[in-house]
Amino acid sequence: MPDSSEIRVSSTGITRLPVQKIADDTLLQTNDPVAIEEPLEIRIQYGPGGRRQEKSLSVTMRTPGNDEELAIGWLYTEGIVTQNSLKITTITTENTITLLLPEGCLPDLTRSQRHSYTSSSCGVCGKTSLDSLQAHIPKSSENTDFSIPAALLYTLPDLLRKGQDIFDATGGLHAAGLFTPQGRLLALREDIGRHNALDKLIGYTLQQGLPPAETILLLSGRACFELIQKAAMAGIRIVAAVGPPSSLAVRHAEATGITLVGFLRQHRFNIYSGAHRIRI
Amino acid sequence: MPDSSEIRVSSTGITRLPVQKIADDTLLQTNDPVAIEEPLEIRIQYGPGGRRQEKSLSVTMRTPGNDEELAIGWLYTEGIVTQNSLKITTITTENTITLLLPEGCLPDLTRSQRHSYTSSSCGVCGKTSLDSLQAHIPKSSENTDFSIPAALLYTLPDLLRKGQDIFDATGGLHAAGLFTPQGRLLALREDIGRHNALDKLIGYTLQQGLPPAETILLLSGRACFELIQKAAMAGIRIVAAVGPPSSLAVRHAEATGITLVGFLRQHRFNIYSGAHRIRI
Repeated sequence: MPDSSEIRVSSTGITRLPVQKIADDTLLQTNDPVAIEEPLEIRIQYGPGGRRQEKSLSVTMRTPGNDEELAIGWLYTEGIVTQNSLKITTITTENTITLLLPEGCLPDLTRSQRHSYTSSSCGVCGKTSLDSLQAHIPKSSENTDFSIPAALLYTLPDLLRKGQDIFDATGGLHAAGLFTPQGRLLALREDIGRHNALDKLIGYTLQQGLPPAETILLLSGRACFELIQKAAMAGIRIVAAVGPPSSLAVRHAEATGITLVGFLRQHRFNIYSGAHRIRI
Repeated sequence: MPDSSEIRVSSTGITRLPVQKIADDTLLQTNDPVAIEEPLEIRIQYGPGGRRQEKSLSVTMRTPGNDEELAIGWLYTEGIVTQNSLKITTITTENTITLLLPEGCLPDLTRSQRHSYTSSSCGVCGKTSLDSLQAHIPKSSENTDFSIPAALLYTLPDLLRKGQDIFDATGGLHAAGLFTPQGRLLALREDIGRHNALDKLIGYTLQQGLPPAETILLLSGRACFELIQKAAMAGIRIVAAVGPPSSLAVRHAEATGITLVGFLRQHRFNIYSGAHRIRI
């Protein structure tokens, strides 16, 4: 386990570690920046004044930074709390974050079991469970649908890449970015886990009161089921990925009415669902 | 949810889905290969004849194929069963695999809770828990330690890349490959989840009776804590990654005596721990 003194040198998720660099059989001993990976335990306190309870909900391996966004985004995209109840205060200790839910906010703790992946009730096995999962996805308001020109999409990967500080320093980390319909970068989050980067981003929109339905989400890598599920929970309508999508990501995007773009490059991309939101 | 008729067209983990390809504002409607992602529930039956019990242990999102290897590798790297008890028969239905443990084999079900990530007893939070996790790592026999020339490492990424069938077809998927100390590819597994690719590979070595301590593991992407933990459980001594390692991967490799190489390219790489096994 890293010494806390050593890995806390930076709040940006980077530490420096000794490394021997071999190139054409010559050796250089140096220090290199490395992306930090550490566990974060998410706990909640909830219930009425006299009968407050505390519960541990999840442990995720994440890159430190924006932990409160991560916890709030995770609680929300897992369906444990709803947007209205997100006036949350937090207590944070090393690698543990405790969210204090308002007295009136009752968390849906059956939802947190989806994440524990210990039974077929996880919500991703079989059509029945998937249906029930989709039923929890908030309805987006009708007037927030929009379309964008193909040429705008071409510009996004470059903007995302320029914002990836930890990637630049360490040679690679997942990123998720949120853009306006005009192609301006609203926010970008990086993490060793692609789901964490997205949870942080969604947590940010919840804290800022940004309507995600009027944004474009860009993922630095592949689009898999879990990311589409989180985007759908947040009400995001357009998801673009630099990498390819999985089969289940495509099906879930179709089922939840999300426009899914893959292999996004400077002059080309693929549309897998919801093509009506892209103007050619 | 994909129709089972449609996604079962290939046993290689690939399906074809409709896609609109946009390039410089021209549109082509076609079908493209997409990597399959589907849930797999891992169940076990265990206990003496008259009192057999069945338990669901995990659900993982995986690319179908080599499911038995995946389940056996997962049970073993999580410490739920030990190598001696791996004379296992299986019953498989769609997206569920049930492993029938021999009567004498008692699974360590406390270990399966590590995977549920629902409490701080998950085994990755805090030094005490990490110590207890490491205590479960089997001791490698003394005579299986070996060293390899730097020049041999240079050749491995190319060999791995050539074997990545699903990557070639779909534009990207995680892979894990196992090589002899002479640089010959023993086995390669691909999956949408990097941990699944490694579990499949380790399941393969257990089924074949291969000694992983005398192999080199190559990961197609980043090296994070979970992969080092699985490698350590399997007794693998040399882990190389095409991508960078995380901070916790480096610390865990040091703690478990694993040689960890990152950024492996044709003429260079970085050594993060266990440099004595690489001859310059």
